[in-house]
Amino acid sequence: MSYEHVVSVSGGMDSATVLRYSDILGKTLAVNFTYGSKHNEYERECAVRLCQHFGIDLIRLDLSNVGKALKSNLLLSGGEIPEGHYEDENMKLTVVPGRNMIFTSILAGIAESNGAGKIFLGIHSGDHAIYPDCRPEFLIAMNDAVMAGTDNKVCLEAPFIYSDKESILRWGYEHGVPYEMTRTCYKHQPLACGKCGACQERLEAFRLIGKTDPVAYEEK
Amino acid sequence: MSYEHVVSVSGGMDSATVLRYSDILGKTLAVNFTYGSKHNEYERECAVRLCQHFGIDLIRLDLSNVGKALKSNLLLSGGEIPEGHYEDENMKLTVVPGRNMIFTSILAGIAESNGAGKIFLGIHSGDHAIYPDCRPEFLIAMNDAVMAGTDNKVCLEAPFIYSDKESILRWGYEHGVPYEMTRTCYKHQPLACGKCGACQERLEAFRLIGKTDPVAYEEK
Repeated sequence: MSYEHVVSVSGGMDSATVLRYSDILGKTLAVNFTYGSKHNEYERECAVRLCQHFGIDLIRLDLSNVGKALKSNLLLSGGEIPEGHYEDENMKLTVVPGRNMIFTSILAGIAESNGAGKIFLGIHSGDHAIYPDCRPEFLIAMNDAVMAGTDNKVCLEAPFIYSDKESILRWGYEHGVPYEMTRTCYKHQPLACGKCGACQERLEAFRLIGKTDPVAYEEK
Repeated sequence: MSYEHVVSVSGGMDSATVLRYSDILGKTLAVNFTYGSKHNEYERECAVRLCQHFGIDLIRLDLSNVGKALKSNLLLSGGEIPEGHYEDENMKLTVVPGRNMIFTSILAGIAESNGAGKIFLGIHSGDHAIYPDCRPEFLIAMNDAVMAGTDNKVCLEAPFIYSDKESILRWGYEHGVPYEMTRTCYKHQPLACGKCGACQERLEAFRLIGKTDPVAYEEK
């Protein structure tokens, strides 16, 4: 089996949308990472369901031991998930150092191993304030590194890097992304909390496009 | 415990030398990766002994499941290890796609998590012919990516990137690197084979500095 694209799918709304984007454009291999975050077990189920829904092959990789060597409140090994807006200063506690860089490097190795020429990343403009490895300057440098570091000159594309969540949702609804199969909340509980930065940003995006989020919340 | 540097130590002669280099310059945290290569179980023991010898803290990370998603004859899942010179075309079969990029990204996450500002990499000029993610253009781009992708602006240094194995050995012997505790052979056997590209490059370096390699070989 050969693939054109490799995509990381967490099970969140951004990666679900990018999965669809990539799949429309060419044969896609999805990769889901478990890395010891509090919401991994809930979002991983979403990743599996999304790939089944679209008939996309999925590799599941457990990086929990790598996660144990990193420090973040997003991880089971870390402190409480902060509440507030996604771009608030206290949301920095949820940064997992190097996460996007680590995922991208592994995707590059998998792309190179499978003859795939492109990696799609689900980063968006709302990530820029807090997450350094989701910013345009990171993407540009990482693209250079991935191209230089692979014989097939694998490249990166982040189609929503300058988009907000509202635009992502609009594009996704126009292209059949089943958002009821996604999970965004950062907390270690089955039901989304509605209060963490990730939930707040998601709920705001649904309000802005005038739709009800199909996912159940504890409070919103 | 805080660290100044993070270094990947495979147990080979280059990483043993860089480990020493980093440790002379500042408090170092070493990381050893198991990724399903044929020589992992033998070189891993060397990594442990080297760190014990120098009193350096070591994190051991098992990435075997990531290795299973990559294609290379260096891996237990791949074909035979080719014999010949390290820079021969057939040695390309031993490239593990993205390996150095993946390791560097994880080191970046660990450095950022521990307040360490620099990552030392053990790549050298003999790697350039075959391994794309050991070339200067990769290092430059990856340094930009790591700096952009971390809040602390972690940076990379590869002190031997323009050196050959001979120069590395000379430096190492001047600075007390115990090469009897290192392992270079790519094959899945306790004794070094003396015939694979990695063994040949190592033996040549010892010949050039006029010393006998302290490691036992099946044939040389």
